[in-house]
Amino acid sequence: MLGKMKAIVKPRPGPGLEMATVDIPQIGPRDVLVKVRATSICGTDLHIYNWDAWAQSRIKTPLVLGHELAGDVVEVGDQVKLLKVGDYISADSHVSDGVCYVCRNGQPHICQNLKILGVDTQGCFSEYAAIPEVCAWVNDKSLPPEVASVQEPLGNAVYTVLAEPITGKTVAVFGDGPAGLNATGVARASGAGTIFLVGKHDFRLGIGKQMGASVVFNVQEPGTDVVPSILAATDGVGVDVVLEMTGNPQAINQGFQVLRKGGRFSAFGIPSNPVELDLNSALIFKGARILGINGRLMWDTWYQMAGLLASGKLDPRPVITHQIRLEDYQEGFALMMSKERNVGKVVMFP
Amino acid sequence: MLGKMKAIVKPRPGPGLEMATVDIPQIGPRDVLVKVRATSICGTDLHIYNWDAWAQSRIKTPLVLGHELAGDVVEVGDQVKLLKVGDYISADSHVSDGVCYVCRNGQPHICQNLKILGVDTQGCFSEYAAIPEVCAWVNDKSLPPEVASVQEPLGNAVYTVLAEPITGKTVAVFGDGPAGLNATGVARASGAGTIFLVGKHDFRLGIGKQMGASVVFNVQEPGTDVVPSILAATDGVGVDVVLEMTGNPQAINQGFQVLRKGGRFSAFGIPSNPVELDLNSALIFKGARILGINGRLMWDTWYQMAGLLASGKLDPRPVITHQIRLEDYQEGFALMMSKERNVGKVVMFP
Amino acid sequence: MLGKMKAIVKPRPGPGLEMATVDIPQIGPRDVLVKVRATSICGTDLHIYNWDAWAQSRIKTPLVLGHELAGDVVEVGDQVKLLKVGDYISADSHVSDGVCYVCRNGQPHICQNLKILGVDTQGCFSEYAAIPEVCAWVNDKSLPPEVASVQEPLGNAVYTVLAEPITGKTVAVFGDGPAGLNATGVARASGAGTIFLVGKHDFRLGIGKQMGASVVFNVQEPGTDVVPSILAATDGVGVDVVLEMTGNPQAINQGFQVLRKGGRFSAFGIPSNPVELDLNSALIFKGARILGINGRLMWDTWYQMAGLLASGKLDPRPVITHQIRLEDYQEGFALMMSKERNVGKVVMFP
Amino acid sequence: MLGKMKAIVKPRPGPGLEMATVDIPQIGPRDVLVKVRATSICGTDLHIYNWDAWAQSRIKTPLVLGHELAGDVVEVGDQVKLLKVGDYISADSHVSDGVCYVCRNGQPHICQNLKILGVDTQGCFSEYAAIPEVCAWVNDKSLPPEVASVQEPLGNAVYTVLAEPITGKTVAVFGDGPAGLNATGVARASGAGTIFLVGKHDFRLGIGKQMGASVVFNVQEPGTDVVPSILAATDGVGVDVVLEMTGNPQAINQGFQVLRKGGRFSAFGIPSNPVELDLNSALIFKGARILGINGRLMWDTWYQMAGLLASGKLDPRPVITHQIRLEDYQEGFALMMSKERNVGKVVMFP
Repeated sequence: MLGKMKAIVKPRPGPGLEMATVDIPQIGPRDVLVKVRATSICGTDLHIYNWDAWAQSRIKTPLVLGHELAGDVVEVGDQVKLLKVGDYISADSHVSDGVCYVCRNGQPHICQNLKILGVDTQGCFSEYAAIPEVCAWVNDKSLPPEVASVQEPLGNAVYTVLAEPITGKTVAVFGDGPAGLNATGVARASGAGTIFLVGKHDFRLGIGKQMGASVVFNVQEPGTDVVPSILAATDGVGVDVVLEMTGNPQAINQGFQVLRKGGRFSAFGIPSNPVELDLNSALIFKGARILGINGRLMWDTWYQMAGLLASGKLDPRPVITHQIRLEDYQEGFALMMSKERNVGKVVMFP
Repeated sequence: MLGKMKAIVKPRPGPGLEMATVDIPQIGPRDVLVKVRATSICGTDLHIYNWDAWAQSRIKTPLVLGHELAGDVVEVGDQVKLLKVGDYISADSHVSDGVCYVCRNGQPHICQNLKILGVDTQGCFSEYAAIPEVCAWVNDKSLPPEVASVQEPLGNAVYTVLAEPITGKTVAVFGDGPAGLNATGVARASGAGTIFLVGKHDFRLGIGKQMGASVVFNVQEPGTDVVPSILAATDGVGVDVVLEMTGNPQAINQGFQVLRKGGRFSAFGIPSNPVELDLNSALIFKGARILGINGRLMWDTWYQMAGLLASGKLDPRPVITHQIRLEDYQEGFALMMSKERNVGKVVMFP
Repeated sequence: MLGKMKAIVKPRPGPGLEMATVDIPQIGPRDVLVKVRATSICGTDLHIYNWDAWAQSRIKTPLVLGHELAGDVVEVGDQVKLLKVGDYISADSHVSDGVCYVCRNGQPHICQNLKILGVDTQGCFSEYAAIPEVCAWVNDKSLPPEVASVQEPLGNAVYTVLAEPITGKTVAVFGDGPAGLNATGVARASGAGTIFLVGKHDFRLGIGKQMGASVVFNVQEPGTDVVPSILAATDGVGVDVVLEMTGNPQAINQGFQVLRKGGRFSAFGIPSNPVELDLNSALIFKGARILGINGRLMWDTWYQMAGLLASGKLDPRPVITHQIRLEDYQEGFALMMSKERNVGKVVMFP
Repeated sequence: MLGKMKAIVKPRPGPGLEMATVDIPQIGPRDVLVKVRATSICGTDLHIYNWDAWAQSRIKTPLVLGHELAGDVVEVGDQVKLLKVGDYISADSHVSDGVCYVCRNGQPHICQNLKILGVDTQGCFSEYAAIPEVCAWVNDKSLPPEVASVQEPLGNAVYTVLAEPITGKTVAVFGDGPAGLNATGVARASGAGTIFLVGKHDFRLGIGKQMGASVVFNVQEPGTDVVPSILAATDGVGVDVVLEMTGNPQAINQGFQVLRKGGRFSAFGIPSNPVELDLNSALIFKGARILGINGRLMWDTWYQMAGLLASGKLDPRPVITHQIRLEDYQEGFALMMSKERNVGKVVMFP
């Protein structure tokens, strides 16, 4: 499709973003063109906004940001088999090559030649986006666009929680950002037993309660002592499952302290630096296992998520705290970087 | 403890049961004596009541029936480590030897020398019962006795449903007896997607809706066509999981017809006779798997069930349709054998 | 590539095959053209040769038969990413669409729109063959062509054996055809404990011993009593794993009789008719599971097979009893249909 | 049994051991008395010999050391069901209580109230030993005593290797002590593909080759560069499985560097101090998993080991470099603490 569209771009190296008018992207034979109905802001976008060390090393400008979306297919490449014009789709941001050793072992989400939408390719903070078929997901037409858009980060939580069976297990979630809140909701909808949620902001912990946390801890409140509290609440045994959604070294170490012998530790949060671990007490004598979580299983996670959403037992809308126009993106970024963090997910409508 | 107690017994070979006064059982070094608070009737008890071919070949009289219970420990054998006087317990009916090849491979629920409470040993339709430590389960004190008692059959459903992960999967449950209704509730609480429930009685299917069925089919209603309906509702794919809780050959075959390629078939219902199966279309070309379900995993299933009950998302009480005095057992058995089946579980209180 | 080649074809409906000169196939954008170095005969080819009911319902003529091969890539479609000219490849015969529900759940080998090479598409009993990239496998250059060609059926055995862990398990293999002999070799190379092999032909059972069977039974020998013999040899417990490679109802029932409680039954052999099973004793009371095996996992099975071949501990060459020229195909088919079955796999060289 | 026996004891706090005459142990109702045929020295025994910080904090004197053995049952407690006089047994050193949360979840090897033979209880460096039934294993009568004795440490390797399927996988083993050498043998017997073994001593690496290593690296040889060598040998992909048997921080970090995306890291070696890990590159972006290994699964591991030994494909005897009289224990300890490490396992005969 020929024409122009508005988009949020990083025009050149350096902090900040701009709203600009750019060409509608041309699609290749295995891509579709999507008219974006909704798109949402991820923590990765903040790194690019702020132009931190990671962004400087990874991002080529000019770049249209954005990798979470819902939209309608308006054009289809001639090698595409799954999709047709009119389909209502979202996308996994992980673009795999489909032929490497890892892809052919059933793990395309960690493809050896992985590209990320809106990071390594032009993204979807725009009116139109080119989406490779290999990472496209067809939505149920009844799914609200704001929910469809946040499936990508919700899928992180689904994968983190369901990397092993969770039903009936006691769970400790570390982190009250969107990832932790979504993980809480997924664990609850999947039949977890007691869920302990550990965070730093009352606003978010309140959402955590809505999502199904049994007990919440605000570590910034004086007197909060997470480890002894969780151990006491589990008869000294500890929890079956720890979901680490922060990357914070203190949270990681607390997670291992409350993990029971033989338990499962899902590691999703990304530490800024190497972490010192007492492997003996954390892992080896405990007979525990640590699962590194990146992306979402394609497409097991998406099918699980679709089933959970269809069941009516998982509703991520309490986590979607703000819905704004794409033009108001600066407001969205400001909210997500505010000290107070009175925000969950921000969805933008082009 | 010395003394007498009332009990429901099969005094001699032949149909029927009697209420009698018998000795309180003496416990061995690895048993506890339980004062029964609640005990519930199982289909197995009907076979013994009616003295059918199976019962004639298996049962030694006189026998106190009953293997589902909740009660308080009042005496403890001197080799017992887990339990103490005052514990509020239930029991798995499967008494394993703990040392056979199968037990030592982690499957004591199908021990090579398995004994069943109230079938191979004296049961719990009585004021007191001797329970081996190896099959005792300590309940949370807050669990109502009628719920604690039905955990044994509820556990069958938990095991059947959770033999593989169920979260987000589409499910077809065959059978609207207590097993099917409980399986529906467990699947719903564990995050299943769409749940199709197939049965024969509107009363029970109504309970199935309460337990979380998305769609119910009454095969006795004219015009009900289960297989095409489920296939149509799943875009021709079929369901991810079939839970077969009837043993009926027609249900088994319908189950395989609605099972998707690569799907899971949990077989819990016990056919009266050998069943003819087209293994090619049912299993082999489909790349499916069939899981034989017997008893409950000890103790994985019980921990999962405890977590589900603690979460508040699984409540078996709609399935408990009748609560009566132990003295009124004839009424309970009559209900369960009635043609109308306006009954789920019947709990009796000594 | 333009030109003519020799090929073995079914020219029109009816029994028999012909050697003919046909066009070298034209490849599509996602295919490669392979110069065939070796190709082998499968039981499926016999069905097509004999034009049985299945063949009549499935096969469209004219058809070049054959789906097992090794060869060199001589031409590459412009959408192909994995392969380049000069690659030495084999193929999985299962051509998946990659986008159906089942494919997107990681099971392309049982794709809902599955096509089979040499059955639904033109095959490889010829000098050249067009192979879709989606089912191509790059071989190690050191692999002899006759071994590379039989990887497809060897892969059936690898999948059947390794559908669950086999190391250290006691195993009963039913069937002394190539599938059973290969399964024996795979189980032995994978660290199985005692392996019982049940067959009908001393010639093949001799190969079974070479492949690693601990004990062989010829059911056609008077006095052979498989079930009591295996039970006696396992202290009455039965075997951990049954690999059913025949489809014969008697073998299937014997398999269930020697399977231990809690054991695994892999069903690969295809029965000609529905089979009557006592599900209670075979499956349900036993707490067993039955795995339907079709094709090979793509590509888990192939990677496992490559590792096994690289280890030097799996060598399928004793099963390759005959290596002939493609022109002599009638001899190969005659051997495989002979009453004596003094044959394993037959490899043909164009 | 009343009487005296010779034993190797730590009589009082401080370095060293003594040969002494002590009472034959009295057994409890759930124990058996074993006449020791063979017993072997473990690294744990060296810690106790040297009276290091760990030993000072854990060991109560006087203590008979030793937890690896083979012997004959000569007396049986009256609650014992599995064993009878004349049985030829070995033992898992992990004595579980059987009733804690972890035991009842099927993980008795990491029981919450775990005791270790010869550490927390009187051991088996003696003519007789009291062995609890709960940790006794009946050997095949044909197993040589020196092999039966080293099953306990061999079982560590079996568990480490088989914690997930290994067949056909590429493997890197770090460590050329008995644990690493045994792991190499188990991986080879279980059908692993290429096995890289990384160690420090040519004597031991030579044994590693006998056990089945494909390639060995001596990191003390100038020019050895493990990480690039393994990456080059795997086309830059890395290995499917890392088996870390050293606890050395450098080995741990090298292990993560050669682990492929989506791979498995079994952590068995015990670091002396906390280890700094780059969790992002080691685990999270890699989508890898780390399995903490302690003890042996009871009894899955032992059954796997019995099958492997029965198959004839696993033979730990090359690792048993020294067989001496119990009286010559000082020689055995000296060998194991020598700088040259020209030693694998040392078996002693009372």
